[in-house]
Amino acid sequence: MPNPLILVTNDDGITAPGLRALIRYMKDIGDVIVVAPDSPQSGMGHAITLDSTLYLQEENLDPESGAIAEYSCSGTPADCVKLALQELLGRKPDLCVSGINHGSNSSINVIYSGTMSAAIEAGIEGVPAIGFSLCDYSWDADFKPAEEAVKKIASEALTKGIPKGVVLNVNIPNSLNGLKGVRICRQARANWKEKFDKRTNPMGKDYYWLTGEFELLDNGEDTDEWALAHDYISVVPTQFDLTAHHAIQDLNSWILNE
Amino acid sequence: MPNPLILVTNDDGITAPGLRALIRYMKDIGDVIVVAPDSPQSGMGHAITLDSTLYLQEENLDPESGAIAEYSCSGTPADCVKLALQELLGRKPDLCVSGINHGSNSSINVIYSGTMSAAIEAGIEGVPAIGFSLCDYSWDADFKPAEEAVKKIASEALTKGIPKGVVLNVNIPNSLNGLKGVRICRQARANWKEKFDKRTNPMGKDYYWLTGEFELLDNGEDTDEWALAHDYISVVPTQFDLTAHHAIQDLNSWILNE
Repeated sequence: MPNPLILVTNDDGITAPGLRALIRYMKDIGDVIVVAPDSPQSGMGHAITLDSTLYLQEENLDPESGAIAEYSCSGTPADCVKLALQELLGRKPDLCVSGINHGSNSSINVIYSGTMSAAIEAGIEGVPAIGFSLCDYSWDADFKPAEEAVKKIASEALTKGIPKGVVLNVNIPNSLNGLKGVRICRQARANWKEKFDKRTNPMGKDYYWLTGEFELLDNGEDTDEWALAHDYISVVPTQFDLTAHHAIQDLNSWILNE
Repeated sequence: MPNPLILVTNDDGITAPGLRALIRYMKDIGDVIVVAPDSPQSGMGHAITLDSTLYLQEENLDPESGAIAEYSCSGTPADCVKLALQELLGRKPDLCVSGINHGSNSSINVIYSGTMSAAIEAGIEGVPAIGFSLCDYSWDADFKPAEEAVKKIASEALTKGIPKGVVLNVNIPNSLNGLKGVRICRQARANWKEKFDKRTNPMGKDYYWLTGEFELLDNGEDTDEWALAHDYISVVPTQFDLTAHHAIQDLNSWILNE
């Protein structure tokens, strides 16, 4: 059996310590090729580059990384996956992993997440895919406690397969107490309460910084937020068929064709 | 009863004819405030602006538009909605409409859509929201045939309410035969078969343009693609809880905690 082929990407950029850690962990279970943005792309959602050019550059940042090849790309995380699958890999990879993100992508954050957009793009193209995020925004976060679980989840995905149309959103708590294990969860209901920080620039023009506070609207013990708050790694099966099937009957009572 | 307050936005920018048409249609059913990007944002997915400043500017592009006020914003469609709700409107609007997009957002396109990201952002914040798209990419597309249906759908949303956690994705076919009516649909399974157009720039460096062909993988007669191909307007109830609930049981058989 040849080694599984694993595409590694992220949204924090090719130099991010979380990506470098993920490369190290994945090289123990497969042949790794890296295609990652050349600069940070956080909050990019599922953006793609339609109206400008894309550059792709072979990199040799760390000859010891264990990756077969590494490329940086001038585009978004979704662009990286598209370019990798179409132009670089030669065959469909057995797995695509994205991350490890510096910061949480649990709950509603999945919608804004560049990390998850890369995984979802792979999923759309029929590649089993997982996004990994550590709930610690600092650049020098400690990824080591996550190593075992990250490898286990990736190995199980390779062995058992991920259900069709599903991508895994894995979040790892930043636990001083030690990790308690892994839980399969649903996405907690939540939103961000925006607070715009309004300022005036030196030319006298007003501008805003987007800030906000996370607002959890869900007390369920089967949610990712509950798991993370209780020192568990959360795994949410995430889909890109956004149809709210339960709402179709309701909407059929609307008067639209008279 | 005061008039309903309607927030109008889009991703093609504040000058787009599709937005100007939507403003005209909405002013007949409510008080309209416009907050739209100052430049085109197609393919932006659910991007938000985290690491740069946001500018907001009052505009007076068309004093006859019927809008109470119009603002352009330097950010993404999701930024526009966040700023509108937090900084401009004073109260929660009764409806947010996004579009009318110049081009389809049916099927898997919903994932990449700036138009739908604005509607989804409003939905996350508890505002009933609809994205409208016309399946015609040209700037001088004819929006007139859509007027009646757009008004009906918006009016029904105001009267009956949209189910919680659901946002409507409305696509309008570009039908020479005339529109046959409106159908409530599910999102068709599909993807894009990428074709990268590889070129060399004058400095000798290779670059790529992202192009592709839409690949429909679904013959269902209950899909948006079927409806559009048969001259119906498609309405897909779309959700931002991405949990694939059906996959949870499957994943619970994975060995992750030993």
